[in-house]
Amino acid sequence: MADGGTGGSVGVSSDRVESFSDAVFAIAITLLVLDIRQPARSGPLWDAILRQWPSFVAYALSFLLIGVVWVNHHAVFHFIARVDLALIWLNLLLLLDVAFMPYPTVLLADALVSGRDEVTAAVCYGATLVVGGVLFEAVWLHVSRRRRLLRADVAPEVVRAMGRRFLGGPLFCALITPLAFVQVGLTLAGYLILLTYFGVTAVREGRTGGS
Amino acid sequence: MADGGTGGSVGVSSDRVESFSDAVFAIAITLLVLDIRQPARSGPLWDAILRQWPSFVAYALSFLLIGVVWVNHHAVFHFIARVDLALIWLNLLLLLDVAFMPYPTVLLADALVSGRDEVTAAVCYGATLVVGGVLFEAVWLHVSRRRRLLRADVAPEVVRAMGRRFLGGPLFCALITPLAFVQVGLTLAGYLILLTYFGVTAVREGRTGGS
Amino acid sequence: MADGGTGGSVGVSSDRVESFSDAVFAIAITLLVLDIRQPARSGPLWDAILRQWPSFVAYALSFLLIGVVWVNHHAVFHFIARVDLALIWLNLLLLLDVAFMPYPTVLLADALVSGRDEVTAAVCYGATLVVGGVLFEAVWLHVSRRRRLLRADVAPEVVRAMGRRFLGGPLFCALITPLAFVQVGLTLAGYLILLTYFGVTAVREGRTGGS
Amino acid sequence: MADGGTGGSVGVSSDRVESFSDAVFAIAITLLVLDIRQPARSGPLWDAILRQWPSFVAYALSFLLIGVVWVNHHAVFHFIARVDLALIWLNLLLLLDVAFMPYPTVLLADALVSGRDEVTAAVCYGATLVVGGVLFEAVWLHVSRRRRLLRADVAPEVVRAMGRRFLGGPLFCALITPLAFVQVGLTLAGYLILLTYFGVTAVREGRTGGS
Repeated sequence: MADGGTGGSVGVSSDRVESFSDAVFAIAITLLVLDIRQPARSGPLWDAILRQWPSFVAYALSFLLIGVVWVNHHAVFHFIARVDLALIWLNLLLLLDVAFMPYPTVLLADALVSGRDEVTAAVCYGATLVVGGVLFEAVWLHVSRRRRLLRADVAPEVVRAMGRRFLGGPLFCALITPLAFVQVGLTLAGYLILLTYFGVTAVREGRTGGS
Repeated sequence: MADGGTGGSVGVSSDRVESFSDAVFAIAITLLVLDIRQPARSGPLWDAILRQWPSFVAYALSFLLIGVVWVNHHAVFHFIARVDLALIWLNLLLLLDVAFMPYPTVLLADALVSGRDEVTAAVCYGATLVVGGVLFEAVWLHVSRRRRLLRADVAPEVVRAMGRRFLGGPLFCALITPLAFVQVGLTLAGYLILLTYFGVTAVREGRTGGS
Repeated sequence: MADGGTGGSVGVSSDRVESFSDAVFAIAITLLVLDIRQPARSGPLWDAILRQWPSFVAYALSFLLIGVVWVNHHAVFHFIARVDLALIWLNLLLLLDVAFMPYPTVLLADALVSGRDEVTAAVCYGATLVVGGVLFEAVWLHVSRRRRLLRADVAPEVVRAMGRRFLGGPLFCALITPLAFVQVGLTLAGYLILLTYFGVTAVREGRTGGS
Repeated sequence: MADGGTGGSVGVSSDRVESFSDAVFAIAITLLVLDIRQPARSGPLWDAILRQWPSFVAYALSFLLIGVVWVNHHAVFHFIARVDLALIWLNLLLLLDVAFMPYPTVLLADALVSGRDEVTAAVCYGATLVVGGVLFEAVWLHVSRRRRLLRADVAPEVVRAMGRRFLGGPLFCALITPLAFVQVGLTLAGYLILLTYFGVTAVREGRTGGS
């Protein structure tokens, strides 16, 4: 491992922080399946599996949402030249939120299966996303403020575009989560739109003088 | 980590996608053991363990099938020069399917132990494999179409051979899974044949002018 | 992977030991969420979630404490030029303690929820931290003793400062854990102080002639 | 990642196989804690924890045994210049055995707690170790046979010494496991001797002309 990325006074390179974050993303995403309960064996197995559909939807939704965060996390670290202690802590808090995802995912799946407490579960799920989004924006604001931790070749307009982009995520989640009070399906549809938007629009490379 | 593999407009290198995929493969393969339930303590322990044989068979089968996918996944990424957003998403969907494997594995083990719902469980297991195989083929088709993401030194006949090879997996699974309606043992035997074929025949290196 | 870090008679480089440790830290930190039980469904979900607050506190506390150990572990390995067999074993024992954290974390959360056995749980939690801190100090003493495993450019005053720093952790834990006999909240407040101290004060780079 | 280690006709480098194996070792070692059950809350917590002592012993024993395998696995891969398909499969089977360890570990812990079925549990535990040891020796024999996969600078006497060393592990396990029929404590003491021997004696570097 090259040491080149080490900056400031902490003995941790940006490569190491990125690898560690990758590991947490990969583990969190793979642990989700442990929360899909085996179907209760009353009646035919096929019926029991079908009644579990919200578990599969919640699994896929959380898997892909964490996947989107992973892709955008990489894009951010692609622009980072060095890390400081505050970045390490903001990133740890972000990972704390990502690693927490299995909990609201099961809340949501159970509520959809039982038809009870759907609003509470959707609000918990949405709140976890909003907190994660705010921490992601905080990571980016810290990195880009006065450009101290940024690579020299990142264009100012890219910095501004990314700040707006990462602010959009938690804002959108904060807006669509209350829709659960009307109909929980509206909130879920909103997450699909969020996934599609962040999935289809990549972070533009945008180095000055780049292609 | 070298940046050389970064291509297009996404800030994620092919090395990073490969490492992340490796981590998900490694976690999924190791989590399988958590689903081997401790034997119920009625009667001698030895009898209880022996009655659990389908759990051990299902564990080994899923472990080795994921292992085969891992080996072939590496072979594909060995040929990849750059990643784009569509590849990241197709790969994430493939990982979603791989990380899901523990669920149908337990279904199959429980059905074989209880002797109930064996067909349903085998169909679920087979369907997970078919979906995974189709996504793997989709990854390869996307990578090799018009060779945009391929290394320059990959021979056209190798591209065609790999396309046929990766198509063979889901096709074979789709054909042998319905045999479970006759006898679930036939389907399991089919998976062993699949394992052996993909295990024994490696992806040929096949660079033009290679050794 | 460069081989440069391999030293002495063991075929393991310091990079490999660091990567392996990183993986264990990342897995241990992410597994913590599995121990937050889904709330029992008697009465409204919201009340059940609120009654679980100690689980969330314990999750966040253990997550951040392991995060602090991870940051300081990196700082130590940043100074290491080669590994010997004793270092590998001391490090494995440290990882054994880190990977054990989910157990006392649940003890603590359950005791706080039920209001029973809080002292016992806090002592177990504290003992795990003390043992971990002692092993961390042992790793550092072994590395820095007669500087055999250290990089040549590490200043002697930095070595002494780190030895004092890493001794402070387990000492502080050993002192505040008995406060649980008075009031368990005092011990928890103590851990927050510990977190803040080790989080805010980074390991100084301190190479001779460095910036 | 350098491509230099890629050999033969498989698109997988020895670095990748080593990283993947490392990940499986790290996950298996960290998952062990999930099988330490929370103590039943009847009577004081402290008594319940003390009655669980076999769980802690089994956790530490399996953790350190997997740690020993990890260290020796690195020593083997340190000598490997290229991988072929047979090595990938032998290594996957070895990982299958390592990832299986949590199962016999719980069997052993439960048997020691309940005082029932201790012999059965010790035999299962020992059998998993013997199978793992045989697979490890098979990996080494395959690597060293006619030196096809070895680095050029490995001395023949080192190859012979390692073959004897790795054969010693499963042989010793096979000999001490039947002692459980007399007294299960003898078998456990034997594992401690094994741990100490393989822990204290490192693989000698032994390159021709090396220091």
